[in-house]
Amino acid sequence: MEYYSVLLPLALIMATSKVLSKAASKINMPQVVGMLLAGVVIGLINYIPNQQILTETSMEGVGFIAKLGVIMIMFSAGLETDIKQIKSIGAPAMVITAAGVIVPMGLGFVVACLFNGGFSAGKEILLNNLFYGVILTATSVSVSVATLKELGKLSSKVGTTVIAAAIIDDIIGVIVLSFVIAMKGTDGQSQSPLRVTLMTALFFVAAGLFGTCAKQLMQVVEKRYPHHRLLPIFGLATCFFFAYASEKWFGVADITGAFAAGLFLSRNPESGYIDRRTDIMSYMIFTPVFFANIGMTVKFNSINPAMILFGLCFILAGLAGKVFGCAGASLLCKYSPKDSLRVGVGMMARAEVALVCAQKGVENGMINSAIMPFILMLIIASSFITPMILKKSYKKQAE
Amino acid sequence: MEYYSVLLPLALIMATSKVLSKAASKINMPQVVGMLLAGVVIGLINYIPNQQILTETSMEGVGFIAKLGVIMIMFSAGLETDIKQIKSIGAPAMVITAAGVIVPMGLGFVVACLFNGGFSAGKEILLNNLFYGVILTATSVSVSVATLKELGKLSSKVGTTVIAAAIIDDIIGVIVLSFVIAMKGTDGQSQSPLRVTLMTALFFVAAGLFGTCAKQLMQVVEKRYPHHRLLPIFGLATCFFFAYASEKWFGVADITGAFAAGLFLSRNPESGYIDRRTDIMSYMIFTPVFFANIGMTVKFNSINPAMILFGLCFILAGLAGKVFGCAGASLLCKYSPKDSLRVGVGMMARAEVALVCAQKGVENGMINSAIMPFILMLIIASSFITPMILKKSYKKQAE
Repeated sequence: MEYYSVLLPLALIMATSKVLSKAASKINMPQVVGMLLAGVVIGLINYIPNQQILTETSMEGVGFIAKLGVIMIMFSAGLETDIKQIKSIGAPAMVITAAGVIVPMGLGFVVACLFNGGFSAGKEILLNNLFYGVILTATSVSVSVATLKELGKLSSKVGTTVIAAAIIDDIIGVIVLSFVIAMKGTDGQSQSPLRVTLMTALFFVAAGLFGTCAKQLMQVVEKRYPHHRLLPIFGLATCFFFAYASEKWFGVADITGAFAAGLFLSRNPESGYIDRRTDIMSYMIFTPVFFANIGMTVKFNSINPAMILFGLCFILAGLAGKVFGCAGASLLCKYSPKDSLRVGVGMMARAEVALVCAQKGVENGMINSAIMPFILMLIIASSFITPMILKKSYKKQAE
Repeated sequence: MEYYSVLLPLALIMATSKVLSKAASKINMPQVVGMLLAGVVIGLINYIPNQQILTETSMEGVGFIAKLGVIMIMFSAGLETDIKQIKSIGAPAMVITAAGVIVPMGLGFVVACLFNGGFSAGKEILLNNLFYGVILTATSVSVSVATLKELGKLSSKVGTTVIAAAIIDDIIGVIVLSFVIAMKGTDGQSQSPLRVTLMTALFFVAAGLFGTCAKQLMQVVEKRYPHHRLLPIFGLATCFFFAYASEKWFGVADITGAFAAGLFLSRNPESGYIDRRTDIMSYMIFTPVFFANIGMTVKFNSINPAMILFGLCFILAGLAGKVFGCAGASLLCKYSPKDSLRVGVGMMARAEVALVCAQKGVENGMINSAIMPFILMLIIASSFITPMILKKSYKKQAE
C-alpha cells in the first residue's frame, strides 16, 4: 500500500476541521458541526476529474483512523460518565429518562416505517427502521449544561434532572444500539432475540469481571506511579481490548466495549488524567478524522424529494420525541408545567453520540448515509433552539 | 476490512512496550530497547498454530500506525533540533561531524561489501551496501548528554562539541539517507545521480519556501492564540503535508519531509508546545507501535552463521567508525588526546534514528531485516560503553 497517499487527506482534514470547528464555536454551535462541514468541503475534491487526492487507498487509511477515532470518542464518553451520580438519582429521573428514550425511538421508528415499507415490511426492514429510532435516543447535554450554567440554574431541580437523565440516557442508548446491531447479525442472517439477549448479558458480566480486575490493577499502578504515562497507555490498551473482545467474542458493537471500558475506569482516582491524555490524541487527529470522514462519505446523490421529506419528519420526530417524552414524564412526576417544559427542552440537544450511532448503522448497512445531513441539521437546530427556549423561559420567570 | 482485528495487537503492543521500556530505563537502557523487545515477544505469537491475533489484516493495520509513527518521530526530531546553535558552531565541530559521518559510513560500506559481493558487485548491490553505511551515521546524543550532565561536564569543551556535532550529524544523516533512497528509485530502476541531486536540491528549495510561509503563518496564529490547540494541529498537518509532498513530488523519503517540517517550525516560539502535544500522541500509541513493529517483523530465520559474522563486524564498524572518526578529527583540530577520545566516545551512542533509517532500508528492499537484531545490539552496547568510558576518563582526571 502506498500508505503516504493518506498523509495529504489527513493534513487537509486536520487543518480544515480545526478552522471550521473554531468558526462553529464562535457562533455557539457544537464543534462537530465544523468537523462535519470540513468533511463535506473536502469531499468536493471528488468532483475534480482525475484527482489523485481522495483515492481508494487514501480513503481506506482515513477510514481506518476514523474507526480508531470512534473507539476513542466512546472511551472518553465512558470515562466522563459520573457513575457515582447514578446512585443518587431518584425515581423521577429514571422515569424521565425512560420516556426520553422510548418516545423518540418510537417516533423515529414510526417515521422510518412510514417511508420504508410500513409496519408490514419484512423483519429485516423493520429492524433497520428501528435503528433510525435508536439514533434519536442519545442526548448531548453539553449545550443545556452551558445554558443552565449561564442562567445560574445548573444546580436547580431542572438542572440536576437533566444531567442525571442524560447520563443514564447514554448508557441505555448504547445498550439498545448494541442490541439492535447484534439482532441484525454480521453474516446477513438476523440473530434470534434470545441469543442476542444472552450474548449481551454475557458481555456485560464478562465486562464487569474484567473491568473490575482492570480497575483494581490500575489503582495499584496509580498508587505507585501517580500521574505517570503508564496510566493513559494502560487505559487506552484496556479500551482497545474491550472493543476487540466485545465485537469478536460477543457480537456486541466495538463502541459498546470502548464505552464500557471507559465506564469501569471512570471510578478510578486518575480517570481525569487518562481522559485528558486520550483527549489530546483524539482532538489532534482521531476525532476530526472521524467526523470529517462522515461528511466525506455522505452520498448526496441519494437525496431525493422523498428522502428530504423523510429527513425533515425524522428531525421533527427527534425534537418532538424528546420534548414531549421528557416533559410528559416530568409532569407525571409532579414537576410544574414550566419545569417540565424546561426538562424536555434541556434533553432535546444532540451531538456526537447521535452521529456515532448513525455511522455505525451506515457501516452495518442498516441505514442510508443520506440521513447524515439531516442529523447534522438536527444537531444544528437543537443547538439553536435549546438555549433559546431555556433562556426565554427563565427570563419570563425573572420578569 | 475487519478493522477491529487490529485492536488486540495494538492493545498488546501498548501494554507490553510500556512495561518493557520502563524496565529498560531501570537498567539505564534507552526505552527503544524495551519497545523492540516487546515486538519480539509479541512476534512469538506467530509460532502458535492457527493463531488469529497476528493476521494479515491486523498486521497491515499495525504497519499503517507504525508508518504514521515514524513520521511523528522524525517530526519531533526536527522540532527538537536547535537550529540557532548551528550558527554558533565553530569549524572544529564541522570537521568532527564530517569525519563522524564519513568514517562510519565508509566502514559500514566496506564491511557490507566484504559480505555482499565485494567491490565488484553490480551497481544496485553497491548501493544497498552503501545503505548499511548510512545506518551508522546518525548519533543519538541523549545517553552522552545524560552522562556528561551527571559528571557536570555538559558545558565543557567536550560537551558543547558533542552536542553541536550531533545536531549537524542528524541533518547530514537525513540528507544522505534521502539521497541513497532516491538513487535506488521506486520503480526498480536506479535513478541517475544528477537527477537525484537536482530533485533533492529542488525539494530543499521548495521546503525552504513553504517552510518559511508555514513558519510565518504559525507565528501569526501563535500571537493570536498562544498555547491553543490550533498550534499542534496545524503543526502536525504541516508535517503530514511535507512528508506527502517530499515522497510524491520529489521522490525524497517521507521521513525527510517530516524532519524538514520539524526543522522549520523549531524556530517558532511555540515549537516546544507543539512538540509536547505531538509527543503525547507519539508515546501513547505511535512510537511503541513503530518500534514493536520492527521487532515483530524481523526475520530471525534468515540469521545464519554468515549473517552473525556480518552483524558483529557491522557493530564493530559502527562503534569504531564513530570513535576513530571523531577522535581523529578532534586530534586534527588540536583537542587534547584525552578530550579527543571523550568526543569520540560521546558520539558513539545510537538509538531511534539508526532504527528509523534501517527500517526505511528494509521497506525499500535495500537491506536484510535480519540486521535489526544487530542494530539493537549496537544500541545496547553503545548505551553501556559510552557512559562507562566517559565516567572512567573523567574519574582518572579527578584522581
